Amino acid sequence: MIEGRSLDGTNNKLTYGMVGGGPGSFIGPVHRAAIALNGQARIVAGSFSNIVEEVYQTARELGIDEERTYETYQEMAEKEAEREDCIDFVSITVPNHIHFDVAKVFLEKGINVVCDKPLCFTEEQSKILMNLANKNNVDFMVTYSYTGYPMVREAKELVKSGKLGKIRVVVAEYPQDWLADRAEDQGNRQAEWRTNPKFSGISNCVGDIGTHIENLVHFVTGLEIDEISAKLEKHVPGRVLDDNAYILLKFKGGATGNYWASQIAIGRENGLKIRVYGTEGSIEWEQEHPNFLKYVEKGGTVQIMSRGSGYLNPATQSFIRLPAGHPEGYLEAFSNLYKLYCEKLIEGKSGKSSEIQFPTVVDGARGVKFVHDCVKSNEDNNKWVDGSFND
Amino acid sequence: MIEGRSLDGTNNKLTYGMVGGGPGSFIGPVHRAAIALNGQARIVAGSFSNIVEEVYQTARELGIDEERTYETYQEMAEKEAEREDCIDFVSITVPNHIHFDVAKVFLEKGINVVCDKPLCFTEEQSKILMNLANKNNVDFMVTYSYTGYPMVREAKELVKSGKLGKIRVVVAEYPQDWLADRAEDQGNRQAEWRTNPKFSGISNCVGDIGTHIENLVHFVTGLEIDEISAKLEKHVPGRVLDDNAYILLKFKGGATGNYWASQIAIGRENGLKIRVYGTEGSIEWEQEHPNFLKYVEKGGTVQIMSRGSGYLNPATQSFIRLPAGHPEGYLEAFSNLYKLYCEKLIEGKSGKSSEIQFPTVVDGARGVKFVHDCVKSNEDNNKWVDGSFND
Amino acid sequence: MIEGRSLDGTNNKLTYGMVGGGPGSFIGPVHRAAIALNGQARIVAGSFSNIVEEVYQTARELGIDEERTYETYQEMAEKEAEREDCIDFVSITVPNHIHFDVAKVFLEKGINVVCDKPLCFTEEQSKILMNLANKNNVDFMVTYSYTGYPMVREAKELVKSGKLGKIRVVVAEYPQDWLADRAEDQGNRQAEWRTNPKFSGISNCVGDIGTHIENLVHFVTGLEIDEISAKLEKHVPGRVLDDNAYILLKFKGGATGNYWASQIAIGRENGLKIRVYGTEGSIEWEQEHPNFLKYVEKGGTVQIMSRGSGYLNPATQSFIRLPAGHPEGYLEAFSNLYKLYCEKLIEGKSGKSSEIQFPTVVDGARGVKFVHDCVKSNEDNNKWVDGSFND
Amino acid sequence: MIEGRSLDGTNNKLTYGMVGGGPGSFIGPVHRAAIALNGQARIVAGSFSNIVEEVYQTARELGIDEERTYETYQEMAEKEAEREDCIDFVSITVPNHIHFDVAKVFLEKGINVVCDKPLCFTEEQSKILMNLANKNNVDFMVTYSYTGYPMVREAKELVKSGKLGKIRVVVAEYPQDWLADRAEDQGNRQAEWRTNPKFSGISNCVGDIGTHIENLVHFVTGLEIDEISAKLEKHVPGRVLDDNAYILLKFKGGATGNYWASQIAIGRENGLKIRVYGTEGSIEWEQEHPNFLKYVEKGGTVQIMSRGSGYLNPATQSFIRLPAGHPEGYLEAFSNLYKLYCEKLIEGKSGKSSEIQFPTVVDGARGVKFVHDCVKSNEDNNKWVDGSFND
Repeated sequence: MIEGRSLDGTNNKLTYGMVGGGPGSFIGPVHRAAIALNGQARIVAGSFSNIVEEVYQTARELGIDEERTYETYQEMAEKEAEREDCIDFVSITVPNHIHFDVAKVFLEKGINVVCDKPLCFTEEQSKILMNLANKNNVDFMVTYSYTGYPMVREAKELVKSGKLGKIRVVVAEYPQDWLADRAEDQGNRQAEWRTNPKFSGISNCVGDIGTHIENLVHFVTGLEIDEISAKLEKHVPGRVLDDNAYILLKFKGGATGNYWASQIAIGRENGLKIRVYGTEGSIEWEQEHPNFLKYVEKGGTVQIMSRGSGYLNPATQSFIRLPAGHPEGYLEAFSNLYKLYCEKLIEGKSGKSSEIQFPTVVDGARGVKFVHDCVKSNEDNNKWVDGSFND
Repeated sequence: MIEGRSLDGTNNKLTYGMVGGGPGSFIGPVHRAAIALNGQARIVAGSFSNIVEEVYQTARELGIDEERTYETYQEMAEKEAEREDCIDFVSITVPNHIHFDVAKVFLEKGINVVCDKPLCFTEEQSKILMNLANKNNVDFMVTYSYTGYPMVREAKELVKSGKLGKIRVVVAEYPQDWLADRAEDQGNRQAEWRTNPKFSGISNCVGDIGTHIENLVHFVTGLEIDEISAKLEKHVPGRVLDDNAYILLKFKGGATGNYWASQIAIGRENGLKIRVYGTEGSIEWEQEHPNFLKYVEKGGTVQIMSRGSGYLNPATQSFIRLPAGHPEGYLEAFSNLYKLYCEKLIEGKSGKSSEIQFPTVVDGARGVKFVHDCVKSNEDNNKWVDGSFND
Repeated sequence: MIEGRSLDGTNNKLTYGMVGGGPGSFIGPVHRAAIALNGQARIVAGSFSNIVEEVYQTARELGIDEERTYETYQEMAEKEAEREDCIDFVSITVPNHIHFDVAKVFLEKGINVVCDKPLCFTEEQSKILMNLANKNNVDFMVTYSYTGYPMVREAKELVKSGKLGKIRVVVAEYPQDWLADRAEDQGNRQAEWRTNPKFSGISNCVGDIGTHIENLVHFVTGLEIDEISAKLEKHVPGRVLDDNAYILLKFKGGATGNYWASQIAIGRENGLKIRVYGTEGSIEWEQEHPNFLKYVEKGGTVQIMSRGSGYLNPATQSFIRLPAGHPEGYLEAFSNLYKLYCEKLIEGKSGKSSEIQFPTVVDGARGVKFVHDCVKSNEDNNKWVDGSFND
Repeated sequence: MIEGRSLDGTNNKLTYGMVGGGPGSFIGPVHRAAIALNGQARIVAGSFSNIVEEVYQTARELGIDEERTYETYQEMAEKEAEREDCIDFVSITVPNHIHFDVAKVFLEKGINVVCDKPLCFTEEQSKILMNLANKNNVDFMVTYSYTGYPMVREAKELVKSGKLGKIRVVVAEYPQDWLADRAEDQGNRQAEWRTNPKFSGISNCVGDIGTHIENLVHFVTGLEIDEISAKLEKHVPGRVLDDNAYILLKFKGGATGNYWASQIAIGRENGLKIRVYGTEGSIEWEQEHPNFLKYVEKGGTVQIMSRGSGYLNPATQSFIRLPAGHPEGYLEAFSNLYKLYCEKLIEGKSGKSSEIQFPTVVDGARGVKFVHDCVKSNEDNNKWVDGSFND
């Protein structure tokens, strides 16, 4: 059931602040809507833009006290940390290239952090953030949104339960077509920064969507990468960053994988798809039809499982907001992550410690390393490189 | 883009109150979440239950002033009407059998009304509500939620644009399976009241889901029913109301239709589907895959249109919250209706008058008549009865 | 495995003759290819046309002896009956309006008959043919081709095994679009005779494709019709026979049905589809994806069964010509019927009597009555008419 | 339309012989049925087995004269070559490891050859066969059966017409699951020889199904491979040959590719699928749904094209045996190849020379080199190897 009972209310158990998410932001409002749907937290502070008047404008619109409207994120971290009613967490929805700076400041103050992916740009930065989070005992979520879909959770449970046996092969893909032409020359701001190394770092396609494959596969299967061979390609003339990539993987334990990520696959919108083949069964899930999960037991029929159905795992059932047959989408997936995160914080307040079920700073660091390993392999003629991750 | 920028804020242009939606309610929170997603209105008043303490409990959770927390809906209508800052509209989410009573009280006070379907139980009641709405110049929305899906809007535009030519045949269905057994004996409260004439009136299956077919077909095609022949069936032993129905239709102008509604179709969840065949083309839409619409031009390929794509009608584009490939679902559809409704109210405040794009009290009345006509035909051995509607 | 080992050979156990199937015939060659695929029978006689030179031309092409090349079907029946090596069966592939005449002549001579559907035009004719077949102990197959698909056989087995429980509801449809325009004015010869009562009798759409629904439902479910209410429509200006039909059914035992047949459904090619809902499960099968069958057990996942898979019923397995994943189509379905028919004849030769698994003259008669009942109901304003069949 | 009019007849314009295809053979009868469906050629000679009595048994079943029943293929080649009425072609359906020997003997005699894939085991053998075919002016078809599907032909036409623009990316796959367990130990004879280097050469998975991907991509796109990086894996314990493979490709001209072939992908039957992305559009085709082809024009809807439809290319139309909506399958695809081959021979007889539209010995050689390149890359840690082919 959609909780939402405190959507407009004051009864939410947690408070939060936001950095970024000012006028024109796409993802900021998604975060706020996703949080609001759960009725667990309300926004009370923010530094929404690097343009001062935009900060105040957004703060007013969101009903935030002037006192907790901050012109810089540094000031916000400092002042909030001093307050007795300090925000329970901060949501960082700024451009990728300053994720690290902002996250670091809040971590240093011991404030819980939610940050968009990619976590940061270098492995050194990752380590700093992991260490800070660990040292200051901070709950840090990185919003790999696709892990919030209930049927992805079901997929994970199927693997965990042993129904697939030992995993042998993982085939995953993420085709899109929005960069099939030079959108960066046609006024598409997202295309401009995505294809610009200044704002996207060393990779566009792998960094933006390849990491979603990496995270989703790890989340569902638990497999750890051993070695990576990657081919990053630039198909659209003039591109300096990749817009198509093939990635082969050796996982620890003997399974292997084949990933394809593309931003030039005409006719494909947001086609993240994962297929896992084990010794006893297989699963298949597609982001564009997220309410369904295919499962085959060796020798059996192709079974289509449906979100909201009674035969699902209890862990999956806990994410059901609407009855079976009433489609849920991306927003609910995003919101599910916040649900898990806020539950953890609420339980933490009452001294309980619970299993972490959301993607953390470690997963973010894993993604950063993955991108670097892909680029390294690509630069060395797709040679196999060490892809193992140690947090 | 998800607007949501005022989700927690005070900046919403409208205020609203709710009758119903207390503890345990399913649809109440859906309404509140749907409204909140748009950032157009915030809740400030309510009478959430017929149990006094539940009223206060919910009001507290929603942060509503005690002053505007009402023990009865009658009191709420009266007191709000007297306030200078009277709510801009009331959302009625009470059980079906008191829709009429509650709606009537607010209409009499000239307060705008949103009411779940079915509008009421008799054609006399429909007329009273229509007349009151008309007389008091009230904006009255009935939440036929499926008309809020963007691709349903696109379907309507395709018909309107003449791309289908003259419509000949409409085939629609709505299979479910949740009443395939005696769920009403197994503690399913929804099943209890749905199958009980006291709370559901003269029909269960046609009243609950058959009317969604009727409304959706009328919305998409604009066709007006001329005659109806209906066969209402009770398959599960002990049922006194229908759980499966076949309905044939003659529309004014020569088109015909065949509807099937069922609550006993094992394996089907919420399978509302509409197919429209004209002299020049056809369309097909399924609620369980709402982001897609099939369209065939005579002699052409089967085209799958996708929500969020650039080739869609501007009217459809206006509902896009997330980019193509990022699934939207039932909640967004519901929210889209409120978006249209609130826009109308906001424009009304500034003296503008705009086309009504949401289902109104007239559509509600149309649904009530449809159910009655079906029952009448069924009682007379499925004879054709006059199905024409005059508001 | 495709048998076919005697495709060109002389080792086939049976011989047959054909009436019709001369130059320009579509269905004649389909029959011959379907027979040949099984390697059970070879053609040795024929009267292929009512134009004498075409008879000889086709006979020459097929390598038939002049002695057994007949200028009329009457002569063929007579002469063959006198031969010691009389053909084992005759395949009748003439236009519908002379099915009766040709079948009767061969029945009278005691020669086994295969005849296209519709069997004939009137119930009186049906009775004459049934009586003759019975009296002369003739094996008579009517080629309702869709019953030859392996997954239709599997569907029948699922029903028979009780996996669906007691059947409650059957929803079936057969949309096409080839008569959406006045194809009969555009040189389409099939359209010409299909829409002409002289050659098609009292119905076009129900007679041509509605009867396929009737036969398929009866084959899969075993249900016997009790009452029929039918609405036959002419949508294309100038038509004198139906091109769209809705048919409601009460079956003996309490199940009900809703059929839709259409030749004007733009975008649909040959969309025969059957859905059967029982108290314990449901099935769904589509002719355009014939290698798959959907099955849902109450409370379970949607299961997609695939032709050639090991989990299928042994009765289904016996029809497997190619391994799973290697699509079979219409031709193999047609051929499967002949396989069953020839097996029956071969067993009969050795004195064995076996269960009849192909559609017989009785099924043909059932179809004739169905068409008549539909027309009768339609003429009386879609009133319920007695639809029960007694052979 | 199914031609078939000479299925049992003597009027076929061509004669052929077969090597292999005796008792227990799967593919032999498929060849014979495929040929027979076209009514272009009849079998008159053969050497069906290396067991003499099986030779005679099959010959008798097929009605072949004793005179043209040969105990060895060598004798057959010699004797037929001496006859005035020498067979027009020979179909070689023997186990893979003797393809070369048999083909060579007939080529030396100047007899036209049809041979199953793989053509042979080494590049030296390929060259010998190519040279012989060239020198003796022999028409040589290698039965890459999937190129016979009409919608594959349509795909090729779409690429050729420029509708996809310049091709950038090809993603193709061929998952199966029949070797997911040690079927070779469970009495599965096909599994026994497929996994045995003595009979399968240096590769199982790439050799059996990877080459189908290679051939299909080349057929549809015309792309020539430049470099190959391949990873061949053995997942089932005890295997000495590959049962899963990932292959990356650089094509001449800048396009790249990613292929996946697997025999251990539980739940997958025969999932050959090809996707081609160009600068202007894309296509997608799946062997298990062969009557359909997806096509997207940049910025447009997803279009589903259907076999038999009027909008298809005339070249595709020429393969239509049954009207749209009447599924054709694997057998018809196989038969289409023979249709093209026999047409070529028939035209050759009358001195005409026409474009070759079937896969030839050159395509066979291409496949042999592909397998070798994959193995070579795999042995060198998946390094890029030269994959270019020169015939």
